[in-house]
Amino acid sequence: MTASTYDPATFRPMTFHDAVPGFLEGRDTPRAYLERCLEVIAAREPVVRAWVTLNEEGARAAADAATARYKAGRALSPIDGMPVGIKDMLQTKDMPTEQGTPLFKGAQTKMDSASVVALRQAGAVVLGKTVTTELGMSHPGPTTNPFNPDHTPGGSSSGSAAVIGAAMVPAALGTQVVGSIIRPAGFCANTAIKPTFGAIHRGERLAFSQSHIGVHAGCLEDMWRVTYEMAQRSGGDPGHPGLFGEAAPRPPLKPGRLIVMESEGWAQTDPRTAEAFDRVLRQLRDAGVTLLRRQDSPLIEAFEQAIGDSLALCRDLCGYELRWTLENLVERFPTGLSDSMMSRLELARGMTIDDYRLALQKREMAQQAFAALAPLADGLVSLSSVGPAPLMENKAKDSGVTHTTGLPAYNAATSVLGSPAITLPLIALDGLPVGVQVIGQRHADAVLTALAQWVTAQIRPVAI
Amino acid sequence: MTASTYDPATFRPMTFHDAVPGFLEGRDTPRAYLERCLEVIAAREPVVRAWVTLNEEGARAAADAATARYKAGRALSPIDGMPVGIKDMLQTKDMPTEQGTPLFKGAQTKMDSASVVALRQAGAVVLGKTVTTELGMSHPGPTTNPFNPDHTPGGSSSGSAAVIGAAMVPAALGTQVVGSIIRPAGFCANTAIKPTFGAIHRGERLAFSQSHIGVHAGCLEDMWRVTYEMAQRSGGDPGHPGLFGEAAPRPPLKPGRLIVMESEGWAQTDPRTAEAFDRVLRQLRDAGVTLLRRQDSPLIEAFEQAIGDSLALCRDLCGYELRWTLENLVERFPTGLSDSMMSRLELARGMTIDDYRLALQKREMAQQAFAALAPLADGLVSLSSVGPAPLMENKAKDSGVTHTTGLPAYNAATSVLGSPAITLPLIALDGLPVGVQVIGQRHADAVLTALAQWVTAQIRPVAI
Repeated sequence: MTASTYDPATFRPMTFHDAVPGFLEGRDTPRAYLERCLEVIAAREPVVRAWVTLNEEGARAAADAATARYKAGRALSPIDGMPVGIKDMLQTKDMPTEQGTPLFKGAQTKMDSASVVALRQAGAVVLGKTVTTELGMSHPGPTTNPFNPDHTPGGSSSGSAAVIGAAMVPAALGTQVVGSIIRPAGFCANTAIKPTFGAIHRGERLAFSQSHIGVHAGCLEDMWRVTYEMAQRSGGDPGHPGLFGEAAPRPPLKPGRLIVMESEGWAQTDPRTAEAFDRVLRQLRDAGVTLLRRQDSPLIEAFEQAIGDSLALCRDLCGYELRWTLENLVERFPTGLSDSMMSRLELARGMTIDDYRLALQKREMAQQAFAALAPLADGLVSLSSVGPAPLMENKAKDSGVTHTTGLPAYNAATSVLGSPAITLPLIALDGLPVGVQVIGQRHADAVLTALAQWVTAQIRPVAI
Repeated sequence: MTASTYDPATFRPMTFHDAVPGFLEGRDTPRAYLERCLEVIAAREPVVRAWVTLNEEGARAAADAATARYKAGRALSPIDGMPVGIKDMLQTKDMPTEQGTPLFKGAQTKMDSASVVALRQAGAVVLGKTVTTELGMSHPGPTTNPFNPDHTPGGSSSGSAAVIGAAMVPAALGTQVVGSIIRPAGFCANTAIKPTFGAIHRGERLAFSQSHIGVHAGCLEDMWRVTYEMAQRSGGDPGHPGLFGEAAPRPPLKPGRLIVMESEGWAQTDPRTAEAFDRVLRQLRDAGVTLLRRQDSPLIEAFEQAIGDSLALCRDLCGYELRWTLENLVERFPTGLSDSMMSRLELARGMTIDDYRLALQKREMAQQAFAALAPLADGLVSLSSVGPAPLMENKAKDSGVTHTTGLPAYNAATSVLGSPAITLPLIALDGLPVGVQVIGQRHADAVLTALAQWVTAQIRPVAI
């Protein structure tokens, strides 16, 4: 198996929910399922380079245990036996947690992050750690795009996006502070969710006031199942009510009205991607969905203005919040951080506590402006990125920060808002995928998943 | 030097702000100040046992650097050269962080917690790590009460409270989830603040939705200076605006009205402690302060009812939030946790995500009931504990949790409220101190400190 260009008509990611009946009826087993994953990994990993660590032995033992549970009629959950990848920002007791930097090479915490505790309690098979950029920020790892190795998989959840696009596993955990789930997921033809802020417990990774744990998957059903089963077992972040919704995905839900979100992405979107997106929108209109834009309501215009500076806002908020960690690392490893990370630190050092307070206020005002849209529409729709995955060597600069894994211009806003976003693989451009995201109000994750189900069923992917 | 019983008339804790003029005028140096601290430590540590680790060499180097800065007229802050103790729940780059459990014996993170980064940036001398109970919860460490070694110093900030009571250092950092700063501080005649929730950055310790970092000190001026200088440099928790106020403490502020908070503590307070507290209240009344109680306003009655179950609420919130960490530790060290900790885990295992959501709702309602008191009074006043420090072997049980360092019955409420509380050493009972706390609305830390200054100046400590 080698990389083939993205064709929505023939692309088949790994899915799990449709394998479960086979487990229950004895036609298939989690162990056999895992072996199929390992075969794909063996064939594609030399080029894709999505894994930092693979724990094949541990995974086989876990898959055997799951196999025995299905045989005994005692499956722990609908994701019992599901092989999953864990972004290497999150700690695992049986593998190092290196956070994409040589500074933490081989670092063992011997603890599972809260979401990983939950996955194991649900019977999932923790197969390995997936590549992240340096400390989950901009400096890239070795992973390549599964549809063309000359292109980035996106970041920072590079490996978690690539393992789905390469059909290596049915699900993987990602994290997003600015655009680290939805953008790479779009670049790699994933179906993925960045849930409501606080909905999935971030375990030891609470340092940012707007980061999220989310799920990369091959389909909406697997995506929702994994998200739900984690939340039931480890809850949301401390002080948060956690994910709302039921175990089974709701039936597809047709939206009456959707707002087309421009955000900072629109001005930077390449014309052919815009054209493809327009064809998606045309299908939505033809199916009877009313589309609203900023000129249709002063409330939408006010919202667009409130999120119009989200990239700089994320840079300030996250830089200030990361500062004490970086000061520690710089002192310990004077030359250990990338230039990109050092420039972030320099910007953060220039901030006062009042600068941070102003940034918090801007974020709260953006959230208010977004909440005011609830009566207008059932959700928002936009691209997941300004175009397909750029070439590996491509570097873009934005508000003082270098991006080597694509611009998060469509993602900063939803991170600032803390609202759920789901990306769907609805566009192919010269054989590379581009995602389309739907966005909902806080805590509407289950409704948004149902809306995404309807969009998936209704819209023919656009290939140009 | 040996332990002597507490006599408010003669007790002299270490203070720092009054030594600074000597540094500036060349009559004294931070190095000489440190040596005075080390002398007291050498004399009293064998019995008090407040330190887990002392870094004398590092402290001497830091004190010499501070001495040079004063000489050059370049002091970094009003706390440049101040020797401080750090509760061993918070990480330090140059000392292990053992969290009061043999499971983390010698554990090195090689990082400074955010507050420790800030302290060093301000020039403070990080002298050592102070004893905490097991994981900051109930199971005690070896520290004894500096006024009588047969009695507990309180917990979980046992060492940080004891080093102030023993006059070893002028300030130490503590943490409070339920009652871990104010109670031990009261038992050890500290002046101490548990600031507004989120006001001081908790660094790597964000696992609880209501924990706080606070300052144990020998006087209000040092307490405020340390709190302020940390907040300026590392800010508050991610997403929080951080401590409000100015660098210099405000002048003493006379309260017009104070509400006498009963909370769960009142019913459990021993009669002689109640009598001493009443004599404090009488002095307040004589000075012209109007005292209000639950029968004086339906709003106060509603507030008392809303906080009436705070101990159980803390147990549920914190148990659920600590669960994933404890599950990891139990698996790794099957017999490594105390019975007290195991009983917490058992209670938490019985909780569902909906139980946790209900607990969050109760907390929010209590916070609303407290906010409604703002127009009624300038603050609240209560005891800091139900009596003086109990004997070391004394065990009390409350809502399924064993307490060996005194009951947090007067503290759970302020932790639930996230409101600032300051304890003052205003009572001596048979030679043991008991604290009186004043409590303010969120973000009123600076005003509350001024109010505490007035109380300190106005009230003669009561010894019976």
